[in-house]
Amino acid sequence: MSIILYELAGADPDVRFSPFAWRIRMALAHKGLDYEGRPWRFTEKEAIEPSGQGKVPVLVDGERWIADSWVIADHLETAYPDRPSLFDGPGGREGARFVQSWFETGVMKFFAQLVIKDVHDLLDEKDRRYFRTTREERFGKTLEELCPDPEAAKHGLIQALTPMRQILKGQAYLGGDAPTYMDYVPFGAFMWARCVSDVQLLPADDPVEAWRRRLLDAHDGAARRAPCKEAA
Amino acid sequence: MSIILYELAGADPDVRFSPFAWRIRMALAHKGLDYEGRPWRFTEKEAIEPSGQGKVPVLVDGERWIADSWVIADHLETAYPDRPSLFDGPGGREGARFVQSWFETGVMKFFAQLVIKDVHDLLDEKDRRYFRTTREERFGKTLEELCPDPEAAKHGLIQALTPMRQILKGQAYLGGDAPTYMDYVPFGAFMWARCVSDVQLLPADDPVEAWRRRLLDAHDGAARRAPCKEAA
Repeated sequence: MSIILYELAGADPDVRFSPFAWRIRMALAHKGLDYEGRPWRFTEKEAIEPSGQGKVPVLVDGERWIADSWVIADHLETAYPDRPSLFDGPGGREGARFVQSWFETGVMKFFAQLVIKDVHDLLDEKDRRYFRTTREERFGKTLEELCPDPEAAKHGLIQALTPMRQILKGQAYLGGDAPTYMDYVPFGAFMWARCVSDVQLLPADDPVEAWRRRLLDAHDGAARRAPCKEAA
Repeated sequence: MSIILYELAGADPDVRFSPFAWRIRMALAHKGLDYEGRPWRFTEKEAIEPSGQGKVPVLVDGERWIADSWVIADHLETAYPDRPSLFDGPGGREGARFVQSWFETGVMKFFAQLVIKDVHDLLDEKDRRYFRTTREERFGKTLEELCPDPEAAKHGLIQALTPMRQILKGQAYLGGDAPTYMDYVPFGAFMWARCVSDVQLLPADDPVEAWRRRLLDAHDGAARRAPCKEAA
């Protein structure tokens, strides 16, 4: 069966920056599943119409169209039980759900502040208009106003990552000795930043930075190989 | 084999309020293990000397002395594999570790502000002096100064619980349909508050409050039966 992943792309179709798609890219690498990553733009709603909604990531597994990164991860875990487990048991699935809730309610906003203007700038022309309009409506300010103080946003991010940092002082991954979906959720946002910007988010001696570098190399360097703006 | 749990007690030896001991009380109830809960005061270091340190909870399982709630939970999971699992698999253990890190780095402080003076007041005389001295040194202010604005602390707590609340809108427990150690970590702090104070921390319609009430009734009401200051 063939697997297709529809994922956001910039004007350059090889730049795939979505934090949610990166969760699934890492999940597919974790499971050792081959797939075709298909570039998609915000305004190409008709291409993913069989998914019943208008957002990516969308996974097409044989005949099945599946939307939403959490539902896709669940599908991969259930449909490919003989491959390495994404969750490491049912309790790990709930643990990943908690990490996701923590990340999306308290951490993601700092990433958004720091990278959203760069995301805009690498979109193609028709997506730029769509992106600016929808995001400015969502946040109630212009993209340029969203991050008046990048140093404060970086500081906020570093503080918000405290629960992760405490764990990563004592072990390689949130999942333990090897990464699980608990790791791919926050890592997806770091890939978002890496793909669109060369901003350095964390000090070199931060245990979270060491974790990020380990994940860049995980699964034969699947993340490190992707086209990006980060220099190293 | 007999199991003994040394746990903090107030002047009234039946009042057992430690948030860390409550994690273990719930873990023991989850496993269906009988135990003798032995009241202990801050100043009774010699009673737990075989544990190699001076803090409770301390669990004595046959010949083994075990300190630290996380190590004790791990021991119970490993030593009693035929009883219901505390973690629901190895990934769930890492999930519980994350919840614990999140809770202790960002949520516990609000509970401390709201209940620490009440804890002091129900201690026996010699523990009061010990407690006041060590806590005032730790926080750099008097117990009376620790919470100048209880309403602000309650508001801070409600905000800090957002990641839990999002999950509990859609399922009964952080662990899924049934509670796991992921639930007992935050629940321990709610029991701390319930045992020492009648302060109402959460609005009645908060999904976290509904979760707390479910856990009071879990395992044949083990938590609800304990002597406490909360009225209902």
